[in-house]
Amino acid sequence: MTDKELELLINTALKEDIPQRDITSENIISEDHISKANILAKEEGILAGIDVALIVFQCIDPSLHFTKKFKDGDKFKKGDILAVLEGKTISILKGERVALNFLQRLSGIATLTNKFVEKVKGTGVKILDTRKTTPGLRKLEKYAVRVGGGVNHRMSLSDMILIKDNHLAIIGNISKAVEKAKEKVGDRVKIEVEVKNLEELKEAMEAGADIIMLDNMSISEIKKAVKIVKGKIPLEVSGKIDLDNIKKIARTGVDFISIGKLTHSYKSIDISLEILKES
Amino acid sequence: MTDKELELLINTALKEDIPQRDITSENIISEDHISKANILAKEEGILAGIDVALIVFQCIDPSLHFTKKFKDGDKFKKGDILAVLEGKTISILKGERVALNFLQRLSGIATLTNKFVEKVKGTGVKILDTRKTTPGLRKLEKYAVRVGGGVNHRMSLSDMILIKDNHLAIIGNISKAVEKAKEKVGDRVKIEVEVKNLEELKEAMEAGADIIMLDNMSISEIKKAVKIVKGKIPLEVSGKIDLDNIKKIARTGVDFISIGKLTHSYKSIDISLEILKES
Amino acid sequence: MTDKELELLINTALKEDIPQRDITSENIISEDHISKANILAKEEGILAGIDVALIVFQCIDPSLHFTKKFKDGDKFKKGDILAVLEGKTISILKGERVALNFLQRLSGIATLTNKFVEKVKGTGVKILDTRKTTPGLRKLEKYAVRVGGGVNHRMSLSDMILIKDNHLAIIGNISKAVEKAKEKVGDRVKIEVEVKNLEELKEAMEAGADIIMLDNMSISEIKKAVKIVKGKIPLEVSGKIDLDNIKKIARTGVDFISIGKLTHSYKSIDISLEILKES
Amino acid sequence: MTDKELELLINTALKEDIPQRDITSENIISEDHISKANILAKEEGILAGIDVALIVFQCIDPSLHFTKKFKDGDKFKKGDILAVLEGKTISILKGERVALNFLQRLSGIATLTNKFVEKVKGTGVKILDTRKTTPGLRKLEKYAVRVGGGVNHRMSLSDMILIKDNHLAIIGNISKAVEKAKEKVGDRVKIEVEVKNLEELKEAMEAGADIIMLDNMSISEIKKAVKIVKGKIPLEVSGKIDLDNIKKIARTGVDFISIGKLTHSYKSIDISLEILKES
Amino acid sequence: MTDKELELLINTALKEDIPQRDITSENIISEDHISKANILAKEEGILAGIDVALIVFQCIDPSLHFTKKFKDGDKFKKGDILAVLEGKTISILKGERVALNFLQRLSGIATLTNKFVEKVKGTGVKILDTRKTTPGLRKLEKYAVRVGGGVNHRMSLSDMILIKDNHLAIIGNISKAVEKAKEKVGDRVKIEVEVKNLEELKEAMEAGADIIMLDNMSISEIKKAVKIVKGKIPLEVSGKIDLDNIKKIARTGVDFISIGKLTHSYKSIDISLEILKES
Amino acid sequence: MTDKELELLINTALKEDIPQRDITSENIISEDHISKANILAKEEGILAGIDVALIVFQCIDPSLHFTKKFKDGDKFKKGDILAVLEGKTISILKGERVALNFLQRLSGIATLTNKFVEKVKGTGVKILDTRKTTPGLRKLEKYAVRVGGGVNHRMSLSDMILIKDNHLAIIGNISKAVEKAKEKVGDRVKIEVEVKNLEELKEAMEAGADIIMLDNMSISEIKKAVKIVKGKIPLEVSGKIDLDNIKKIARTGVDFISIGKLTHSYKSIDISLEILKES
Repeated sequence: MTDKELELLINTALKEDIPQRDITSENIISEDHISKANILAKEEGILAGIDVALIVFQCIDPSLHFTKKFKDGDKFKKGDILAVLEGKTISILKGERVALNFLQRLSGIATLTNKFVEKVKGTGVKILDTRKTTPGLRKLEKYAVRVGGGVNHRMSLSDMILIKDNHLAIIGNISKAVEKAKEKVGDRVKIEVEVKNLEELKEAMEAGADIIMLDNMSISEIKKAVKIVKGKIPLEVSGKIDLDNIKKIARTGVDFISIGKLTHSYKSIDISLEILKES
Repeated sequence: MTDKELELLINTALKEDIPQRDITSENIISEDHISKANILAKEEGILAGIDVALIVFQCIDPSLHFTKKFKDGDKFKKGDILAVLEGKTISILKGERVALNFLQRLSGIATLTNKFVEKVKGTGVKILDTRKTTPGLRKLEKYAVRVGGGVNHRMSLSDMILIKDNHLAIIGNISKAVEKAKEKVGDRVKIEVEVKNLEELKEAMEAGADIIMLDNMSISEIKKAVKIVKGKIPLEVSGKIDLDNIKKIARTGVDFISIGKLTHSYKSIDISLEILKES
Repeated sequence: MTDKELELLINTALKEDIPQRDITSENIISEDHISKANILAKEEGILAGIDVALIVFQCIDPSLHFTKKFKDGDKFKKGDILAVLEGKTISILKGERVALNFLQRLSGIATLTNKFVEKVKGTGVKILDTRKTTPGLRKLEKYAVRVGGGVNHRMSLSDMILIKDNHLAIIGNISKAVEKAKEKVGDRVKIEVEVKNLEELKEAMEAGADIIMLDNMSISEIKKAVKIVKGKIPLEVSGKIDLDNIKKIARTGVDFISIGKLTHSYKSIDISLEILKES
Repeated sequence: MTDKELELLINTALKEDIPQRDITSENIISEDHISKANILAKEEGILAGIDVALIVFQCIDPSLHFTKKFKDGDKFKKGDILAVLEGKTISILKGERVALNFLQRLSGIATLTNKFVEKVKGTGVKILDTRKTTPGLRKLEKYAVRVGGGVNHRMSLSDMILIKDNHLAIIGNISKAVEKAKEKVGDRVKIEVEVKNLEELKEAMEAGADIIMLDNMSISEIKKAVKIVKGKIPLEVSGKIDLDNIKKIARTGVDFISIGKLTHSYKSIDISLEILKES
Repeated sequence: MTDKELELLINTALKEDIPQRDITSENIISEDHISKANILAKEEGILAGIDVALIVFQCIDPSLHFTKKFKDGDKFKKGDILAVLEGKTISILKGERVALNFLQRLSGIATLTNKFVEKVKGTGVKILDTRKTTPGLRKLEKYAVRVGGGVNHRMSLSDMILIKDNHLAIIGNISKAVEKAKEKVGDRVKIEVEVKNLEELKEAMEAGADIIMLDNMSISEIKKAVKIVKGKIPLEVSGKIDLDNIKKIARTGVDFISIGKLTHSYKSIDISLEILKES
Repeated sequence: MTDKELELLINTALKEDIPQRDITSENIISEDHISKANILAKEEGILAGIDVALIVFQCIDPSLHFTKKFKDGDKFKKGDILAVLEGKTISILKGERVALNFLQRLSGIATLTNKFVEKVKGTGVKILDTRKTTPGLRKLEKYAVRVGGGVNHRMSLSDMILIKDNHLAIIGNISKAVEKAKEKVGDRVKIEVEVKNLEELKEAMEAGADIIMLDNMSISEIKKAVKIVKGKIPLEVSGKIDLDNIKKIARTGVDFISIGKLTHSYKSIDISLEILKES
């Protein structure tokens, strides 16, 4: 994501929040009033998006000073001051909500990802995200997954072949689908195949899949799958993963676990902006 | 939101998901293959965004037929078919993820809002959202809140005056802030004031606030506030609301309860698209 | 309006004026020729838009020096030098027309607004604009109204409820319209009602309107309206206002007078850019 | 101007007027209510922009029926119904202001242009506009000039060479400027030269100017200029033209008169939209 | 590429070619004049972009009829009528140049690609393009390569890992570079390595490269490389390929040959639009 | 072309090349690694677009240092270092391909143009381009033609009248077409007429054409045309021009020769970017 792209996204967000003027601040605070403000953690988490917050304020007023106290990837606790702002009060107040809307979401994703990553520590398993991202925010959300210690699954439909149940419903069988794909891309792109049971798993292996995704299988089936594959190709587990069952799945010997909720159902981290009263 | 604006947002989302081509479907499925597909609820909820899903598919391929089986605001249960698609298979598969990414999020918001609305039924209290919306999606998310039975708080910084703690940190006291605001907008815009305790509440009333927001007060304080105000101006409660405590708050006699998590920490509803196997 | 939004508008204007190249200046003046130029008032007025002019030149060539001699809101007379430019001659000439097109219009609005404001001085009446603004320029034009001493009426259809004759043609009567509006927005937004006669005025008062607009009433009717309302709610007069009749209307005791021509039929102020001959 | 470009401009205008929702109409009128409405002339004029108005309504709601009763270039009088709309009431009301904002301005330009054109009837003189157009609206405004019977001066800095006083301040003399221009464009583009007196006029003729603009000259000087030029090259008069003096100028025998106020200081024509009461 | 994206590109091209109006056609041809026109091949080739041409005309005037006589991928010869247009003459003339500018380039690419494809027929070698595409036209140009029988190399920096000489200049050796890449993407993306000699080839094989690109090697070296690799991983040849030497390279037994000039130095095919004289 | 326009074009190109991330460089090179790199000529040519390359790198990372060693218009030979880059390695690698894609094309145009210009040296003939430019790149490509010593034909349909065979197919004869054009633009714009034979040439002269284009005539016809015209109006030759026949055509005494292939079929100049190994 180039800076220009990010600026475009931020400006869309600013236009949404301030289509005309900030009729509260601009009417009651004088234009040249100067403040200092803290960006304050109200609960613990892993920080992601502090530079996005910085650029929000720069888009509004390049003369604001924004001093980072934590950087992306840092663990913070309740009460920590994440950044300090100084400059025109009206500029700070105009950027507050949009900056926090980015920061709270991205930190929410990094924090949730990190919880899963911690759970599988030592197993060698990698936590993957999915394409279930918020429209318009994919690059940022996938960035936050990386910040939390996760690894990105494919970024889009354009960068990897993943043959799923809907494709198989049309093509009929895995061998034929893989064969067609290889014919067109000529071994130049990885081919992943989603399988629902051990028969499909074997078919995918024989067809020459590069990666196999075990979709919604039970622990015991996953264990059998691991035995069948014997490390010849990587295995990814997907479906119904939560913080309670992930450790058990990770211990089966699979390589990847992909989790939709990292980006579709995370919780925003509580972060606020507080203007410091003059003393 | 005009159709054009929505199309722009959808096209951004599509470009994110298909920056170049869908290298799976376009390589293994023939261009003129036709399918029928169901959009299927995997859990219960309140539907929101079915027309957004429709427009996603129209942006990709205007020749697709999309038949709505449920409409926004309808309650659906697990297993319900929400809509049926017919047309080019590749077009259906290209739109699947983006359509669902919108539909699952908006239905998530409508469903959560509706749970709160149900809790306060009979009390006359209205459930409000906040400006804690996802960058780029505010209009859609606020629409989903209305679909769920909620009422929109202000849409942006431009359409209502809300004097908050950060303003008071600068101006010093409520009376002065309200006075300045009235001077500039000449009684033409509602002025809401956020108060943290009963002293501030009284000051705001005397200053002529049109609405007062009780921020993070205890139930007993809220009760006292209701007694003080005696129905002369509307009261809004904000801060730390959840499905467990909302009923108690609603019964205090306040008019509005605003809830950030309606838009900042909702859970996507599980909805999938399934291509029907030819028989 | 963020700087980015303004830059976008300015770039549209520049593209209109220089779709390819400035084939006069670029062909006859050498690229590194340096000039000094004055932005010169050819008639008196109130300045508005000097920063817009500045940004026009910055968009073309960030190395140009632009020194403001007057600032927005200042009164200037014929012959005053409003700003001085120094830098590449070709850059100055490329920005000349677009900068003046903004500056002359915005100063025209500020100047006209100010004439009306001067007329009502001492009466306490506030001069309002309308939504009859030039497509694409609303924020700038409403800004120019404020520079001239006016107050902004609503910025858009999204920020205030104004029930007009067309609404009443559909709903049937004022009470019902106001009631519906209150039901939906729950006392959270000001409701203004446009009335054509004293009966409607009374109906609007009883219905609980927050502001009443007297549309195209005679002076004597306005006087009666003021007596009926007795200061309980603000009154706005609208329709056929000019510099000759405004004082009489202002003296009736109303609170606001809204004037469409501030933005739909103003006269551009004559301002020119003159390159200084080298001596 | 392609339809797409116009749609972009219209959507910008719509976003300005309805950044979020139309909180009046959408709250008090039911979504499926149908109306008929007239676009009504409140004073006489020459129509321009009726198709722009049509596209505004199509951008909001393609299902609206818009029946033109007059077409661009037609003369209308007070009370004439210019067009009739039928369809969803809310859609009509959402487009009303933006459609009229275009229609009133463009008809204002066509009407004013036509008054000048009528004044010079029989003299063979052509009325020209200038580049003093509203930022963002140049193509539409220049179109309205043509509708009113005028002829467009250059559309931009890219399509004709016009050597003005500021160029001469730098180059020093007309001969040198014209020579440089011819050298670069090789006789491929018309070269117009602005002159302030008869000496400069002669110099421009000798230098080989294709057209000469007489800037701010008195009637008697203009007459002398006509005698000097003897029809060899076209003459354009510019500066301080109004409806009172234009006839006299036209009779001097010049070819063109250019008038900035056609686009910088016109008056919007009073046109309104009226929903028809159901009977 | 969605239709919307293509429309955006086309509109940019149209704005470039008609920033204001078509001052020839619009001034000399009446607005309602109807014509029939042929899109005519002036030399032989492989057609690509006929639908782009169609959309160009639809963007200008949706009422034009465009009848395709050939479709993308078809071979045409000099004198063939590729498509027939009927409708408003001015609309046809406005779209002519832009439609041809797309059509001639894309057909140029498809034709050149096809010549290379024909040369390697029977060898099993696949012809690849590169990222040396025209800024703004990558998707269209890569589409034209497919139309001509080629296969697309990676679409962008985001969809495959290709370790090139510049990376190796930094990392130092191939093993380390491949190891780092695998560590980050965890076997999920194909890794291609560019090698300059046989030592590097062996190192890349040992490091576990998925594909190896032989950059600028001699035929004899390529033959040795094929022997070393023994079909275990695909080989791609790159650098200094032309129609004369490609057959010899293809016969060495490599899998892919990538050719920059397919998109950076192709020749436009001569195609014209001819209005039919009325008889 | 303002800097903003160019930035927009560059950002489109960057988004094409890096829709998500550079998954090679970002995964194997550390974020703070610093490099020095040369932009190196691999063959001789005339440089054009060095500032475009510079802005590409600035769009990616404003902290990169880019030192120009040659400037546009300079002749360079194989092995010359055209520019030197210093800064973050990842930033250099992300911009490499896009910067070169612009630079190689524009230098290709300048170099080809210059070859034609050299051929006609001493004849006084000017080399013209056409509107056969790459969609989206017209201004840059026409700039490169000027860098190579050529002169721009019209930039677009909006800036000159050129009556071509398609117009004549509709209007019937040249006199009528020229007359109509003059009537509308009133002698304000140059009128060029394309003729296919000497009869049409004479008709165009009599009709008052300002320039005449001889389309696809033989040398002997061109010579006759020159005799007929006797220098009264400029003559342009068009059609089937190459480096072999241009000198002969130039010596006939015509004024301009226009060449489509300058922009539709040029060859990219081989230029590469090489990271310097640390020593």
